[in-house]
Amino acid sequence: MKIGVIGGGQLGRMLSLAGTPLGMNFAFLDPAPDACAQALGEHIRADYGDQDHLRQLADEVDLVTFEFESVPAETVAFLSQFVPVYPSAESLRIARDRWFEKSMFKELGIPTPAFADIQTQADLDAAVASIGLPGVLKTRTLGYDGKGQKVLRSAADVVDAFAELGSVPCILEGFVSFTGEVSLVAVRGRNGEVRCYPLVHNTHVDGILRLSVASADHPLQAQAEDYAGRVLQKLDYVGVLAFEFFEVDGGLKANEIAPRVHNSGHWTIEGAECSQFENHLRAVAGLPLGSTAKVGESAMLNFIGEVPAVEKVVAIPDCHLHHYGKAFKAGRKVGHATLRCADLPTLKARIAEVEALISRG
Amino acid sequence: MKIGVIGGGQLGRMLSLAGTPLGMNFAFLDPAPDACAQALGEHIRADYGDQDHLRQLADEVDLVTFEFESVPAETVAFLSQFVPVYPSAESLRIARDRWFEKSMFKELGIPTPAFADIQTQADLDAAVASIGLPGVLKTRTLGYDGKGQKVLRSAADVVDAFAELGSVPCILEGFVSFTGEVSLVAVRGRNGEVRCYPLVHNTHVDGILRLSVASADHPLQAQAEDYAGRVLQKLDYVGVLAFEFFEVDGGLKANEIAPRVHNSGHWTIEGAECSQFENHLRAVAGLPLGSTAKVGESAMLNFIGEVPAVEKVVAIPDCHLHHYGKAFKAGRKVGHATLRCADLPTLKARIAEVEALISRG
Repeated sequence: MKIGVIGGGQLGRMLSLAGTPLGMNFAFLDPAPDACAQALGEHIRADYGDQDHLRQLADEVDLVTFEFESVPAETVAFLSQFVPVYPSAESLRIARDRWFEKSMFKELGIPTPAFADIQTQADLDAAVASIGLPGVLKTRTLGYDGKGQKVLRSAADVVDAFAELGSVPCILEGFVSFTGEVSLVAVRGRNGEVRCYPLVHNTHVDGILRLSVASADHPLQAQAEDYAGRVLQKLDYVGVLAFEFFEVDGGLKANEIAPRVHNSGHWTIEGAECSQFENHLRAVAGLPLGSTAKVGESAMLNFIGEVPAVEKVVAIPDCHLHHYGKAFKAGRKVGHATLRCADLPTLKARIAEVEALISRG
Repeated sequence: MKIGVIGGGQLGRMLSLAGTPLGMNFAFLDPAPDACAQALGEHIRADYGDQDHLRQLADEVDLVTFEFESVPAETVAFLSQFVPVYPSAESLRIARDRWFEKSMFKELGIPTPAFADIQTQADLDAAVASIGLPGVLKTRTLGYDGKGQKVLRSAADVVDAFAELGSVPCILEGFVSFTGEVSLVAVRGRNGEVRCYPLVHNTHVDGILRLSVASADHPLQAQAEDYAGRVLQKLDYVGVLAFEFFEVDGGLKANEIAPRVHNSGHWTIEGAECSQFENHLRAVAGLPLGSTAKVGESAMLNFIGEVPAVEKVVAIPDCHLHHYGKAFKAGRKVGHATLRCADLPTLKARIAEVEALISRG
């Protein structure tokens, strides 16, 4: 079976590492000449709107999936004429737009911060009056890793905020005083079967994920699975979906969903019986889903900007390096380490060992 | 770091799957147009004696390693002029020739079946008179998976045996009445550090490995590690070496060594903290070695001739499929499954489930 992937970054690379042992081959459509997944599959170098190359991809593969959600809707619609596409165009349409996404949460009875659609500065002024400050103004589409958003703390912050984000459609979200950020990685098969990994506690620095720790028997696991199940069913979703939540007053408020394998699920490569990457491929290929059970106690640390010296990373016991083969650049995710330990005290000590290697530059 | 591999079969493929996350790239030199490792690295399609392409490989990579031991000595000598080669030419010279190999065992005080060098039919007649029957006549080089050998049970079997194996240099080995076959996968770093995986109990059918079960606290572990240590030190070996033994009267007799990652070590991909593939690459690259500790109870079943339906293999809990992407052909190793279970009774049940899928055709 040959899988087409829109995007050829590290997520595509890890999909191929998981799918090759299942007998799958991969083609990645990505305009970047140095797309790092090309070491592990065919690289179709083309823009996402290039219909000739999209048609070539569709002709070569059995199905198409995505490694990022900001794919133009036209791209998905075009591909869907020729080849099965998972997750569906509708799933991407909702997930890539914060207004559609939050509106769906509301419709499904899933708690989420107060929010308002912002098409003009006047909309913003009215929404601030209604929701109050502090708040976060976010572009409806194309935001990631803290990009495309601005925290509004005072009236002065509000004045030119809409223009500062490019005068594009936005939403205002009420600020949430959370005690933690957690995410649930869930997978749904073509037949509707759903499996969920243990909730992961996430720590962000400057808007970028730094550390994910897989939890054991988290008290909010059932609530998270309930909310994720509603979304998966509503979208008739196929594949892996990541659901980010705020922990507030002992409950969960939905932050956002990502219709793809997710950074907070990278620990599953070693830390779960079947990884998020293999389970995504099993789902889209119509295969039975694999176990989402934990193996040991796990955490994931991102390498941002640069990967520490390989000999130092692999010298840490219980540590598994994932180097993405990308050029090092400030703020860029270029690798991660998974820790899989026998117990939590060991995990805590190992996290400190990896953190000591990460330069704070 | 770019690694050159002589041979581009499933072992090369699994080396790349293990090394890519360490930030390594791969080039495989293999004359076969359909060499299955080419999905995961550059394929230099050339004969092993093609000096132009060997030179190209040497120029492109940081070091060269092997996925099979029958590489011509001239190939190794040629490459060694331009690029580090691990394991060394001398290690390959010994390991690829049963006479050199067995003579080394004897020199190192490692018990091994009685053996004699056979250059002519007269040598064979004399050796049979001395060692007795039954015995096994084996070509000194190029034998694998039961090929290049003939069991001699009666005088009639002896008559034309040397000619039947092609009148090439052979050894006669005294028949060993063993209670089991075990193998030790060991790895030695450039700095001389040695680590060994748990002993594996192997079951062969028609000379081809079918089932490997990793043992826990095998009473002969220390003896096996002692013998392997002697060989590794003698050869100043770098990389993974597999050591096959017969269990005889509560002790070990050396059968043979393989100077490479080995089929009986495939279970380590999921079943050990750091796989034989990653540890081989760590060793040749001069990186610290990884833990060889088991994770759960593991076994490996080979798929010979064909891979059962993927949806049936992955539906078995605790089962991990490794499809080599090779054309199916009788007698050919085309994939394997690793089982990693919480306990031995579960492992035993899962082995039966996988065996039920394997057609006996």
